[in-house]
Amino acid sequence: MTAPLLLPSRRLRRTPFSEGVERAGVKAYTVYNHMLLPRLFCSVEEDYRHLKTHVQLWDVSCERQVELRGPDAGRLMQMLTPRDLSAMVRGQCLYVPIDETGGMLNDPVAVKLAEDRYWISIADSDLLYWAKGIASGYRLDVLVDEPDISPLGVQGPKADALMARVFGEEVTKVRFFRFDWFDFQGRSLAVARSGYSRQGGFEIYVDGYETGMPLWDALMAAGADLDVHAGCPNLIERIEGGLLSYGNDMTRANTPHECGLGKFCNTDAAVGCIGRDALLRVAREGPIRQIRPLEIAGGPVPHCDAPWEVSAGGERVGQVTSAIWSPDFETNVAIGMIRKTHWAPGTELSVAAPDGTRPVTVREKFFI
Amino acid sequence: MTAPLLLPSRRLRRTPFSEGVERAGVKAYTVYNHMLLPRLFCSVEEDYRHLKTHVQLWDVSCERQVELRGPDAGRLMQMLTPRDLSAMVRGQCLYVPIDETGGMLNDPVAVKLAEDRYWISIADSDLLYWAKGIASGYRLDVLVDEPDISPLGVQGPKADALMARVFGEEVTKVRFFRFDWFDFQGRSLAVARSGYSRQGGFEIYVDGYETGMPLWDALMAAGADLDVHAGCPNLIERIEGGLLSYGNDMTRANTPHECGLGKFCNTDAAVGCIGRDALLRVAREGPIRQIRPLEIAGGPVPHCDAPWEVSAGGERVGQVTSAIWSPDFETNVAIGMIRKTHWAPGTELSVAAPDGTRPVTVREKFFI
Repeated sequence: MTAPLLLPSRRLRRTPFSEGVERAGVKAYTVYNHMLLPRLFCSVEEDYRHLKTHVQLWDVSCERQVELRGPDAGRLMQMLTPRDLSAMVRGQCLYVPIDETGGMLNDPVAVKLAEDRYWISIADSDLLYWAKGIASGYRLDVLVDEPDISPLGVQGPKADALMARVFGEEVTKVRFFRFDWFDFQGRSLAVARSGYSRQGGFEIYVDGYETGMPLWDALMAAGADLDVHAGCPNLIERIEGGLLSYGNDMTRANTPHECGLGKFCNTDAAVGCIGRDALLRVAREGPIRQIRPLEIAGGPVPHCDAPWEVSAGGERVGQVTSAIWSPDFETNVAIGMIRKTHWAPGTELSVAAPDGTRPVTVREKFFI
Repeated sequence: MTAPLLLPSRRLRRTPFSEGVERAGVKAYTVYNHMLLPRLFCSVEEDYRHLKTHVQLWDVSCERQVELRGPDAGRLMQMLTPRDLSAMVRGQCLYVPIDETGGMLNDPVAVKLAEDRYWISIADSDLLYWAKGIASGYRLDVLVDEPDISPLGVQGPKADALMARVFGEEVTKVRFFRFDWFDFQGRSLAVARSGYSRQGGFEIYVDGYETGMPLWDALMAAGADLDVHAGCPNLIERIEGGLLSYGNDMTRANTPHECGLGKFCNTDAAVGCIGRDALLRVAREGPIRQIRPLEIAGGPVPHCDAPWEVSAGGERVGQVTSAIWSPDFETNVAIGMIRKTHWAPGTELSVAAPDGTRPVTVREKFFI
């Protein structure tokens, strides 16, 4: 892979943790929600090994929040997603596909702060504009805005140990996809057991830009003997774990069902959801193509920055959208969208990688 | 300036011209509307000199289009902007601030294709989502989508000469901010006299991904003796010319009036505009801070990637958001937002640049 330079500008917003990230020697960025997201510190392989062994601080400020506040906040939240939110309780996080009319606009995590207050922790698209447009058009009594909240991920097997040292033992009792409030230097911060890895950990919703570096430094100091490093979402680990990336593995062209997110769509129950009607048929009949775990044969594949065509007997049957060599599984792990006719586990297909055609196998499950 | 690497991924979409851009040796990118935008070929100074002397091809595919199509297209277009569109004719382009409630969501160019069909050529935010939300909420009879249209800029003093060789002499008769249809290899393309420089030129709305490289190659071949180069929006030239950059010089926090775009707001006439009520007072009384042309004293300033505070007698009165050394004017040209109390031309203020405090002067006009 040859990576070009990124020209910095105010438009590519820096984060409350950028100083710490740069001090830690960030080598490459991406841009996500008009904000800098670190992508590389040592090497993808070293970052991966460290993530699976120790604990990392992730500057995921780019997971911007869309805040819904007011009497119609709950109503608007349900209008945005086909997932049934009627049983959602305060302190809960839910992964919610956002659909317009059979096309996903984002795949965020909704965070319920109160009956009349939600945060939506977004993937890479201005969901703020969709929520604002719906609130305006339907004349809802709700304020929709982007608050000054920047998530900091603490990920890896030693995350509980590190977090307990800064927030107290209580923090380790937070259940998966729940959050609670914890004090840091007189400031109450929402801390959720969540994150974009399969290694376990937390996301701290850091409230206020000025809280960023003191918290970063406190975690770094408290975790010195745990070998805490600056890190970031790791391409190998996320593909092994089947964590989807909006914009990479799916776009506005895909339904939630094509992304394997049908289990998060309660199309019958989600009354009020704007995209509901458009999803009724696909919910009953299932999609005709779907995201599948894939394994690509041969040595390490080149960097994947555009879809690679998948074919069977010369006929196009899908595409690979994420792929990389996995040191742990000693194969190329991949994510792709495959037609129903060819998605059965064990099916052998061909993929047109930039360095030549290779055999690719549909798997039953992701690797971790 | 130290520029980090940009890690490529499908999410940072490549364009129909990426192959040509890379062949031309692009050195740095930025990300704009989830797409790659070239930022540097030789050096900022060399690219600048060439732009002012010859002609360049700009891959501005990232100026994505939002297409409005259907009986309510015109109505929706007017709902989005406080600019009065009642006299807009087919074949016309208009710069339209998009406002929600006293906060700009984008500053695109609207292109009227027909009474029931518009393109909105957007700056860096998903205006598509706002337009979709409004269309849904107000139950308008209009389709809102992103078509497969990628603008290619042809900018510089020799732009007319080059364009005539590929599209015929007729193309040179297109007036400023008007467009017409021209044939290229059997395909009819909209060609507008517009672009993000003060050097003159065109933007070709390239319809269909596959048309991209044939057109790029045809222009390169036709312009060899005109010294045509691959180029991109140039930081020096745009600041000299006072071309604003959404996300850099202004954000959702600013009204159009603060950006000096009050002349594009016909708040009394723009009946139906959603943000109208919120702008009535500022339209009458004027803003309390506004974007101003600035000149910063001393040698070349460092790269500006975050706002620099502007003060008078120790009191904060504004900020610089774009600044760079101009070889032609032999000074640092800058754009900033300054409080009304201190914005009179000739006012001397201080700016906290990263390498120290410098005198800064408010100018009457931009440099070109």
